[in-house]
This record gives sequence, C-alpha cells and structure tokens, in this order.
Amino acid sequence: MERNISVEELHQIPTPKKEVEIVERKGIGHPDSVADGIAEAVSRSLSKYYIEHYGRILHHNTDQVEVVGGQSAPKYGGGLVLEPTYILLSGRATTKVGNDRVPFKSITIKAARDYLREHFRHLDVDADVMIDSRIGQGSVDLVEVYDTKKLEANDTSFGVGFAPLSETETMVLNTEKYLNGELKKKMPMVGYDIKVMGFRQKDTINLTVAAAMVDKYIHDADEYFNIKDELKQLVLDNAVEYTDKEVKVYINTADIKEDGKAVGYLTVTGMSMENGDDGSVGRGNRVNGLITPYRAMSMEAAAGKNPVTHVGKLYNVLSNKIANDIVKEEGNDIAEVLVRIVSQIGRPIDDPHVASVQVIYEGNVDHSKHKNNIRNLVDDRLAHISDLTMEFVEGKIPVF
Amino acid sequence: MERNISVEELHQIPTPKKEVEIVERKGIGHPDSVADGIAEAVSRSLSKYYIEHYGRILHHNTDQVEVVGGQSAPKYGGGLVLEPTYILLSGRATTKVGNDRVPFKSITIKAARDYLREHFRHLDVDADVMIDSRIGQGSVDLVEVYDTKKLEANDTSFGVGFAPLSETETMVLNTEKYLNGELKKKMPMVGYDIKVMGFRQKDTINLTVAAAMVDKYIHDADEYFNIKDELKQLVLDNAVEYTDKEVKVYINTADIKEDGKAVGYLTVTGMSMENGDDGSVGRGNRVNGLITPYRAMSMEAAAGKNPVTHVGKLYNVLSNKIANDIVKEEGNDIAEVLVRIVSQIGRPIDDPHVASVQVIYEGNVDHSKHKNNIRNLVDDRLAHISDLTMEFVEGKIPVF
Amino acid sequence: MERNISVEELHQIPTPKKEVEIVERKGIGHPDSVADGIAEAVSRSLSKYYIEHYGRILHHNTDQVEVVGGQSAPKYGGGLVLEPTYILLSGRATTKVGNDRVPFKSITIKAARDYLREHFRHLDVDADVMIDSRIGQGSVDLVEVYDTKKLEANDTSFGVGFAPLSETETMVLNTEKYLNGELKKKMPMVGYDIKVMGFRQKDTINLTVAAAMVDKYIHDADEYFNIKDELKQLVLDNAVEYTDKEVKVYINTADIKEDGKAVGYLTVTGMSMENGDDGSVGRGNRVNGLITPYRAMSMEAAAGKNPVTHVGKLYNVLSNKIANDIVKEEGNDIAEVLVRIVSQIGRPIDDPHVASVQVIYEGNVDHSKHKNNIRNLVDDRLAHISDLTMEFVEGKIPVF
Amino acid sequence: MERNISVEELHQIPTPKKEVEIVERKGIGHPDSVADGIAEAVSRSLSKYYIEHYGRILHHNTDQVEVVGGQSAPKYGGGLVLEPTYILLSGRATTKVGNDRVPFKSITIKAARDYLREHFRHLDVDADVMIDSRIGQGSVDLVEVYDTKKLEANDTSFGVGFAPLSETETMVLNTEKYLNGELKKKMPMVGYDIKVMGFRQKDTINLTVAAAMVDKYIHDADEYFNIKDELKQLVLDNAVEYTDKEVKVYINTADIKEDGKAVGYLTVTGMSMENGDDGSVGRGNRVNGLITPYRAMSMEAAAGKNPVTHVGKLYNVLSNKIANDIVKEEGNDIAEVLVRIVSQIGRPIDDPHVASVQVIYEGNVDHSKHKNNIRNLVDDRLAHISDLTMEFVEGKIPVF
Repeated sequence: MERNISVEELHQIPTPKKEVEIVERKGIGHPDSVADGIAEAVSRSLSKYYIEHYGRILHHNTDQVEVVGGQSAPKYGGGLVLEPTYILLSGRATTKVGNDRVPFKSITIKAARDYLREHFRHLDVDADVMIDSRIGQGSVDLVEVYDTKKLEANDTSFGVGFAPLSETETMVLNTEKYLNGELKKKMPMVGYDIKVMGFRQKDTINLTVAAAMVDKYIHDADEYFNIKDELKQLVLDNAVEYTDKEVKVYINTADIKEDGKAVGYLTVTGMSMENGDDGSVGRGNRVNGLITPYRAMSMEAAAGKNPVTHVGKLYNVLSNKIANDIVKEEGNDIAEVLVRIVSQIGRPIDDPHVASVQVIYEGNVDHSKHKNNIRNLVDDRLAHISDLTMEFVEGKIPVF
Repeated sequence: MERNISVEELHQIPTPKKEVEIVERKGIGHPDSVADGIAEAVSRSLSKYYIEHYGRILHHNTDQVEVVGGQSAPKYGGGLVLEPTYILLSGRATTKVGNDRVPFKSITIKAARDYLREHFRHLDVDADVMIDSRIGQGSVDLVEVYDTKKLEANDTSFGVGFAPLSETETMVLNTEKYLNGELKKKMPMVGYDIKVMGFRQKDTINLTVAAAMVDKYIHDADEYFNIKDELKQLVLDNAVEYTDKEVKVYINTADIKEDGKAVGYLTVTGMSMENGDDGSVGRGNRVNGLITPYRAMSMEAAAGKNPVTHVGKLYNVLSNKIANDIVKEEGNDIAEVLVRIVSQIGRPIDDPHVASVQVIYEGNVDHSKHKNNIRNLVDDRLAHISDLTMEFVEGKIPVF
Repeated sequence: MERNISVEELHQIPTPKKEVEIVERKGIGHPDSVADGIAEAVSRSLSKYYIEHYGRILHHNTDQVEVVGGQSAPKYGGGLVLEPTYILLSGRATTKVGNDRVPFKSITIKAARDYLREHFRHLDVDADVMIDSRIGQGSVDLVEVYDTKKLEANDTSFGVGFAPLSETETMVLNTEKYLNGELKKKMPMVGYDIKVMGFRQKDTINLTVAAAMVDKYIHDADEYFNIKDELKQLVLDNAVEYTDKEVKVYINTADIKEDGKAVGYLTVTGMSMENGDDGSVGRGNRVNGLITPYRAMSMEAAAGKNPVTHVGKLYNVLSNKIANDIVKEEGNDIAEVLVRIVSQIGRPIDDPHVASVQVIYEGNVDHSKHKNNIRNLVDDRLAHISDLTMEFVEGKIPVF
Repeated sequence: MERNISVEELHQIPTPKKEVEIVERKGIGHPDSVADGIAEAVSRSLSKYYIEHYGRILHHNTDQVEVVGGQSAPKYGGGLVLEPTYILLSGRATTKVGNDRVPFKSITIKAARDYLREHFRHLDVDADVMIDSRIGQGSVDLVEVYDTKKLEANDTSFGVGFAPLSETETMVLNTEKYLNGELKKKMPMVGYDIKVMGFRQKDTINLTVAAAMVDKYIHDADEYFNIKDELKQLVLDNAVEYTDKEVKVYINTADIKEDGKAVGYLTVTGMSMENGDDGSVGRGNRVNGLITPYRAMSMEAAAGKNPVTHVGKLYNVLSNKIANDIVKEEGNDIAEVLVRIVSQIGRPIDDPHVASVQVIYEGNVDHSKHKNNIRNLVDDRLAHISDLTMEFVEGKIPVF
C-alpha cells in the first residue's frame, strides 16, 4: 500500500512570531468540558463492556451530551443549588449482539454518574444532577461497515494537529492544570469551572482567568477580593515560568467592586453549570487541550467517538502525535509543523485520502534533508494507528 | 475612544496556493445544521417578541439544541419513519420583565416547529418529531450586565474571519446551495441532508458529496444508481464553473454495488437524523457557511446567541464582513486577509480587547500603502457593530 | 364450558334511598380526563394500524399518560399561556412483527396531537403542548400469552358495574354533558375543564360545579360574575329535569368577591392543565363516566388498555353492560344490580374466575323468578365478550 | 360550629356475609406502589424542609409520579437489567418564599433516590433508574387559599373509610406483609413486587399471589418450581391463621410447566418495573392498604398530597380512623361501619360539607343507643383533624 502523503514546506512566519496570538482553554469543570468528559467516560465504559463480553470493541459513538444548566443561589459561607443540572446522553451504541442484549443505558448512566462523582467533589450527584439517556441503536449501514473488521473509516472527515506549542499556548494549558491541580490543596475555594484566555500582543501576554469560587470557603466579599489578589499573584508566579515576555493577569473581570457594591463569581459547587450555563460535546477544547484560532483546527468532537474506526477521533489525535514526533525527531531545524489527515468513508483507516504535512523551518533549512524522514514517520504512524485504540479505552489519551 | 487595532503583514503563501486544501460544508438538512437552524429561528422569534412587547431585545442565548436521531426504515418506493427524532431546546431567556411573564417556552417550541415545517417538506412534524424545551432563566449576573444597555461583551471570546474564499471553498459552498436549491425542481429525490467535502491536492479538486436520497421517488436500486450517475454529472457541470482545475466528483461513496448486492443512501425524509444521526449547535459550519481546517476558525457557536451583545455571534460575523470589505476596498493587491476580534467580558462591544488583521499581499506590495485604510475600515465597522442586530433578527445574515 | 356465575339477592336499601349520596364527574377537559382521552385515542390508533397491516390487533397497553400542567397568565379579554403543558406517553406496544418494525411512537404522538386538536379548540397544540413518548416494547411473557390467540386474561383483575343510575348520578352525568355540549353555542366562555360534584343529603341535591372560564370572551370581573349567575340558572334549569328533589347549584365556589376584591376561575384555554393542574390515566371517572364512592368501584384504568384481552378494560365495561341489560330485561322488579367479574391470569377471557351478580329488588320479589334469567343473560354476554373489541376501536364505547 | 354529621342505620347484610368478596393488595414493590411510595417520600421531605426553614408546611402536592418500566433479561443464576426504569416526578411545590428560593427539585430527587435505595436492595439506583423532575410552581389561587392559614379545603373532594376488615381483607393484607417482611430472611429469592388477590366465594377463599422471584438466588427451573411449592405451603400456613374457612393458594399462575417447557416469573431486582410494567400514583391500594371493589372506595390518590389541607389525603385517612374508632368504642353491636367525609373547596377542613356514617348492626340493636355517641366521636375526630399532619410527616400513617 502506497499511502498518499504530502510533505510541503511553508515559507512563513511561525505562529509564535506573529504579532497577535489568542489561545483559550476551558477547564475540566467548564460545561463544555463536563460534556466532553462524560462522553468519553461513557465510551470507555461501553468499550470495556464490549471487550469483556465479546472480545472486541463494538460500534458506538456517544459523542453527544447536552448539559442543561441548573439554578443556584450561592452565598458567602455556603449557598444552595436550587435546580439540578439536567444531562442528556445521546449517540448510538451496539445494543444487540446476536441474541444478547447489551445493558447500554445502565452502563452509560453509571459511567456518567461515576465520572461526576470522581471529578467534582462539591457536586451532590444524587440531588443536584438529573441524567437521562436517549442513546439509541446505530444506523444499520454504519454498523455493517464497522462490523467488517476491515477498520474502514466511518465518515468523510479529517484530523488536524500541530507542534510545538507556543509559549502562550503552553502557559494557558498549564495555568488551568495548575489551578485544577496542585493549587487545590492550598486554595480549595477555587472551583473546577476555570476558563483561561491567553492573548499575546507582540511581547505582552494577557492572561484572563475566569474561576468559579466555592462559596462555603469564603466568609464575605472582603475575603473574596483578598483571595482574588492572592490567586492573581499565584497565577502570575506560575505563568512567568513559561516565558520571558511580560505577563498580565486578570481574574474574574466581570466582578464588580464599587460604591459599596461587591459582586464576585461565586458558586456552590465550583461549576457554572449549576446556574444556567449549558454545555455540549465538541464546543470546547480540541484534542490538544486548547482552542487556537490562530492555528488550524478541526471542528470534530473527539470525545465519545468510538476509538476503533472513528477518524474524527483517531485522526485528530494522530495528527497531533505525528506533529510532535516530527518536532522531536527532526530537531531544532523545525519551527512549526502542521498535520492534516483526511479520510473518505469506506477507505481503510490506515490509508487516508491524504496525510498532509506542512513544515515551517527555522531560518534556512534544506527541506529535502527532512522531507523523506517525515514521510516515513507519517507512514509508520499511520501503519500503527490502531495502537491508539486501547490507550483511549484505558484513559491514557486526553481528548479535550 | 482609541480602539486597539493591529494590522500586520504576513509574508506567506496564501491558502489557495498551498499544496493541499480541505473544505467542508454541511447542508441545511445535516443534523448539526438542523440544530443551528432551529437555534437561530428560536432566537429570532424571541427577539421579535421582546421588541414588540418591550421595545428592545432582551437577554437570551438559545445556542443549545440537541437533535437526537430517530429510526427509520426507508425502502424504494417509500418507507417509514419508525421512531421520531427528539429535539431538546435549551439555553436561557429573559422569562420575566417586571411582573410580566414571557411565554418563552411556547414561543420557542412554535419557532422550532415552524422552522422544520418550512424547510423540510418530507418531514411530518406532527408525527416524526418530538420537541422538548428546557430553556431556563439566564444567570442573574449575565442578565444584569446585559441590562445596563451599555452593550458590554457578555463573554471573553473572539471572532475569526477571512477573505476571499478560494476556488475550492467557493465550489464547496455553491455545490451545496445548488443541490439544496435550483436542483430540487429537476431532481426532487435529492434530500436535504447533504455534506460536501472539497479536498484539493495541487491542481486537482476532489469533491465528495454525501446526499440522502428520498425513497418515495426512486423505484429500485437500478434507478438509484442511474440517478447517482446523473447527479454526478450535474454536480460536475456546476462545479467546473468555479475553477479551471481538474475536478473529480464522488457521490455517496459508502454505497455498495457488487455481487448482486446494492446498498444506497436512502431515507424517507431526505434527512439522516431520521435514522440515528444526532446533531448539535456549533459543531457544523462556521458563520461563513464552511468548515476550513486550513484556515483559522473560531469554535464559537453563533446560531442562537443573542444578536445584541454576544460577541461569539457578533465578532465572528463582523470579522468576515471586515475581511470581505477589505478585499473589496483595497483591491487586487490583497491575496488573503485574516481578521480576529477579541472581547473581554465587561468591555463595550464596540471596543474589543483587540481587533487583529493579518494581510497577505499578492507579490510586492507596500504594506504602508494599505495599513491605515484598513485600520480606518476596521474602526468604522466596529463603530457600527450594532447595525448587525436587526439584520440577524430579520434573518438576513446566515450564521451557518 | 360451565361458567362460574353467582347470582345473589341482597336485602338492603338501594343506594338512591340511602340518606347520603356522593357522585362526581370530571369533564372532558379535566387533566385526568385529558390523560384518559389521549390514552384511549392512542390505543385506537395503534389498533387500526395493526388491523390494517397484520389483520388483527396486536398486544399493547397505553394506559399510562401523565399530563404535567403548564403555567398561564389568564386575564379578562385574553391572557397568555406561559409554559406549555408536558404530556408523557408511556405503556407498551408491539414494536416488531417478524422483521417489520412498527412506527409506534410516530403513530402514538400523532394520535395524541390529533385528539387534542379535535377536542379543545382554544389550545394551540403547536405552541402550548410538548409531547414525549416513552412507550416501549411489551414484556415478553405477556406478549406470548397474548399471541396464542386463545384470548386469555393477561392479568388477575376484575370489573365492576351497576345499574340503574340514581337521579343524582344521572343529573351529574348530564350536567357535564350539557356544559360541554349544547351550552357551548350559547356560552362559549365556559371552558372544557368542568368538574361536577353531586352531593345528595336526603331530599336535597347539592350540585357543585367548577367550570374553567375562557378569558378572551369576558371583559371584566363584573361580566364574569354576571356570567356565573346566568350559568347557575341554566345549570339549575337543566338539572331539575332529572329529579323532583330540591336542587341547589353552586358554581366556582373558590371565587372571591368581597371588599372590592374579585377573583374568578379564569383560564386561557378553558383547561386547568394550562396552569399547574396535573392529570393521569385512571384517576378520574370510571367507565360509566362517574366516580361513585357510595357504590362499588374498580380501580382499574380502562382507557388505553388493549381491547382484546385486557380484562381491566373488558370486564369493567361488560359489568356495566350486563347490569344495564338485566335492568332492561328483568323490568321494574329490580331496584339495583351490582355486577363484578373476576379474571385470573391465563384463563380464557370468556371464562372468568367468577361473575358475581347481586340484586336488590323493589319490595317483595321472588328471587328465584329472575335468578335463572339473569344467569343466562350473564352467560350470553360473556360468550359474546369479544364483540366489544371493535366497538372500542371505532370509539363507540366511552371509557371515562 | 355545628358540623353537618349524618349517622344512618343500614339494614343490610355486612360485606363478609355476602356470597362473594374480592380483595386485592399491591405489594410495596408493585409499580403503582413504588409510585405511591416515592410520592409520599417526596412530600415528607418537602414538609420537613419547609418546617425547618419556615416553621410550617407550605403548599405542595406531589401526588403525580409516573414509573415507566425498563427492560431486563433475567436468568437463573443472575441476569441483567437492560434498560433503566424512568421515573417522572411531577406535581407542585412552593418554590419561592419571599425572596428565598426553595431547592425543591434537588430535595425531591434526593428523596426519591433515598426511598428506592432504602426499600429495594436489589435495585442499583445509580445504574438502573433515571429520575426526572418536572415539579412546578403551584397555581397561584391555590397557594393563596392555602396561605391564609385558615386551613381551608383546597378541593371539592371526599374521603371514604370502613371497619372492621373482613377475614378475607385481613388475610390479603397480612399475606403481603408476611411476604415482604418476615419471610425475606428465610426466602430471600422472593422479590418485592407481590400482588395478592383474595377472592372469597361463600366459604372458600382463593388466594392468588403473583410474586416476582429474584433470579440470582435460583439456579434453574427445577429449583424455581420447588421454591414455589415451598412458598405455597408457607403462604397457606400463614393464611389459615386468619380464618376457619377453606383457603386455596395459587402462586404465579401465569407460569408454564409442560412438555419440557418451563417459564417462571423471574426478575433481576424482584420488581416487575424492571421489565415493562409501568406504575402511577393513585392506581393501587387505598389508604387502608387494600383495593376492595365490594366496598365503597374513594378514587383519590392520597400519596404525595400535602398533609395540611388536602382533603383527598386527610379525609380518606380520617374516615378509616373514625370507622375503626367507632368499632372499637361501640363494641360488638356493630357489624360494619362506612364513613364518608365530603369537602367543598374553601370550607375549613374541620367543617366538611357533610360527614356521613352508615352503620350495620349485628342482629337487633337499637340504633338510637349508639347514634349520639357516634356523632360525638365524629365531631371530636374532625375537631382534631390537624393532629394527623405531623404523623404523616413522620411517616407514621401509611397511605397505600
């Protein structure tokens, strides 16, 4: 099999050297990320069930989760969730295998509940969440395509990836990870719904953070604004490790503090979905964890898609992996790599319609020196694409 | 007010001259587009009600619609819808004005039904669709921000636009418009769910079309495959008007025709949502009608967002408008313009955090000759951003 | 087959001669009746589909409908429905016949919409109602029992009937029919949600009527109270035709008119479900159209049950039919007849566990004169029980 | 206040002496009882919240619960729940008190989950149940009536009660209690969904028991049928303690055992709702725990109604209490007492439209001897009607 692989040199300024860069990350507790997280947890659970009972992963795509925000009345010292968040699971699964019926709804509801319990400790999953499942049977044609075991693409779609991350991108990614990770011990009042927006203009990086605060840890508005000051400093200290550029940090810019009026971003559970913010799969971070309007992106929702044949999942992750591997292997010559892989419904997944690589070199580099290596690397990674499947099932590959 | 406007020259190959281009358009009957269309129809209906009763558009964001596919049994000559499609409306609206309560659910359900009836004539809206609304009251803070009338951005977000469209993009866009427009008279069996994927590799454009066929117009598999041949020729004839490059057309590539087995892409209603395909707002076309992984894109769902202050809607449309206007006014010197506009929650919408323009010129052009004109154009369009509002309400601006 | 038929004489005062009698009828627009009406319409539609496609009625029981009231803001001259009523269809149907799938959800949703459109003309079915269907597949065992064609009882259950109706009962029944029938031309402002309670104490019958008024026909509170006076007189004029006893009529007794305060029972659609009143199948009228706590009653919900084998439906209707036929055939000797028919799951429906008749005679009558006739009549009616089936399908037998 | 109390002697044969009697009890795990149990648990939880926060029980009626059965595949040794049961909570609650909002949905969902966990140990509440709440705000008028504290009837309704229980009734009631109580230790395979039908014909009582068996405790069909034999004997041994009449016991009469075919009544959770059986409030047992078509009954659903003013709840329970107290205090002279209490909307709950007592004496008893005592007893119980309220809240009064 001769794969259609295109390796092209681009003569242009790499993204980090352009005047403006915008990068966003929605944290794990953002409603869109909650939807993504549930969708992927549901897919993992189904996959495990299928493997256990039938020896292989059967067709499913649970990449449709709608989070309909509830209502809450946060207040300093501890408020109330007034109306539960409603979560609708949809998508398709293999619901019957021969004469066996698969308890797919029970599996998926359980997976969703477990995911929420595990990740969001201020959420009372028994009282504050209603979960409904309208997951149905897959359309027959798709199921047949899938069942041939030839691992054919089940959609005409594409994946997009790039490497390396710019300073701004690295900073945005790690700011959220810091806030939802290490910082929690020191500042438990910082909730899970965190949105980080990095906006670099020339040599200044503006880091705008929206962080839902958990009301029960904060006694009053004064304490709230003190906490914000402390948080701002910690975010800044963390951020400057990723750059030499000037960093300006803004926290919860919609807060009001004037004329004796003080309104902060307070929540009961640390999640804005408790009070009217909706979310759905595929509207948040791309598979590299970021939203990057100054870079090429795919619109595909990866979370919840089946990890065996859905190119919307596989090709996006593989594109990023290939881009990173090229940077790693080809070394310092490379300023930026963009990878796109395009499927066509019915083609084997390891033989895409095209795998297209665009390379921007640092200074004067002879493209021909790298072109063949890159070609071979892409060829190899495509040949091993199915190695990704079990990594998804085991939760080793983040998809948002 | 001195707006922060950045106009930067990029020295790089314009997109249409790169080796590979991928462009996709989901037609009006694709489940993601159905979700977008309903979301926007719902916003328009609410806006009109608010204007009629309160003189201005009140806060709402109905950019959350989940389409859960039904089940069907299409067959040559006419099949059956077996299970209705379920459509969940969510998002927020202003539900109370002083002591008045707004019949927001009735308005929104009616708007959704009317939209479906108007656009998809093979769909029996009474029998084959169930609509539920979980639209709720907006979170109080957002409502307050909105109600100040200062027209402040209600989110930290950004818009992205570019111009001009490449040949491939123009061809993809117009192929779908042709199939869902003029062609319908000649070939009524071509349904509404059409997906067009354009993949240009150097000087060859591959146009892959997936078009749901309406079963009642087709007597048997032979006729189906004859129709496909006819359709292929018509698509090709139409496509070559947009390019001198070689065009290859593929129709319904997942069809099977071998060994006496013949499986086509047949539907009862011309929409794949009838049989298991789900959709949701914001996962399909960007506001320019395309998905363009070789271009910068925003992840924002525009459809359903309020047309007064939601920068996710306004800035995306305005970015494209600015890009097009620059190309129109600055003439042939310009090969490609990229525009991004970044908000920060709480800032006036006509004073974004930054409006960034990147220009690629054709050949050797003196950037300084255009830079100021462009700056002024951007400044002017931002000053008049609110002119867009009523155009959205009247349905004059497409958002997907 | 020797049927187990018990015919017993009771020496007791017939119900109409006891000191107190209470009789209630929920009109066609009462939420419980709306649920009943939809359930039965759904069963009729399914039955017709099964007959048309498979030559006989297949298993189904759609006797579960939950009407969740909406919200409204009625006002004199015409108000608004604020939130749609939500209607959940559940129950079971035969969803697959061999390899055919039955479009049961589409059929049932359509039947529900059509029923509402046909009966309640102030209801905007497109805007003010949301219908969901969770009708599922029947449990396998019941389906098998049913499919044997032996017409075996699918439940251990019983039916109850009596005759003749007392004056109070006749009056209550006909008052509602009058208000929801003939009167509508003269007084269109009288809505569909009417509840009539007859309470006889010795020789006085208190007739308490709650009637939702349609706001758009009434200009102000004065007109409302005038209409009530007019209505009271018309109800009285109608009622006295059924009795020589004293009749006192009360209309909308929860209204307030004092100290300049005037609160009437106003609705937009003539139905209280528009504003918070819920309903469900089987909680309203028995199959004779009445609720009669001074008589024996069955708890079975007849509406929506399958008309072929469900004894909860067949036996209740047959018991009343038998009671009426006995009164008709045995003549003036009989003061009161009570009939109960008891099934046992698995027995043929025409051979119940017992059919028990209790007779109260007028004065001194020789029981033995009638006993055998009655026995034979019961035997005959049981033998012809299946004649009822098509009468249900054609809507000729009211079930609530 | 002179209450309207009617005490009437009836000259008729007491129910236990009539030829035929039919009595039914749906056990705690029957879908209708599950609905009742949840509805009442929800009311108790709301009541407690209101008392804790506002010092008194506020308006609510949560007497609408729809249980939509799931699907399961039981098998000897342990099967699977295939689709979760869906439970819809509806009804009304006080959702706002001054500026406070009440977390009524969270309270009610939690109450429902807790109830299920507590009573049905084979049910995996996280995986096998989906709960949705559409509980809304009460209609304004009713809320006002309620809020006056005058404790006025919120409906025109009535309660019905009688005493003493016949042997058949006592036996049916205690058979279910035995099967769902004491027996569980000895025979854990007997599930919660138990339906007991007692049918007495002259001196023979037929006791038909349908009891869902829990599959994991039973290895095969042989063991199943052995267990049935054992169970039959235990039921009989228990039943004969309540009567000297002949008792015949039938267990799971729909089972099949012939020609090598053996079909038993097997479930995974001991509840038939797991596989297609639906339930709703008010369609099962009356407040005395029985369905008695040979006695007068009320159609009112008591479970879930507010325990302060809802006469549908209070009057049914009080009628039974009064009947029992009359039997207790007036001694052996009394063969049967029937009590009905009728409200009229707007009247104080302790002053019903009428309280009607009908007494059947044993042999020749002078009615005048008892009439006044009974009158006084009724008067006293009505005067203390509000004592019931807290007993409901504390769960001391069964309502189904």
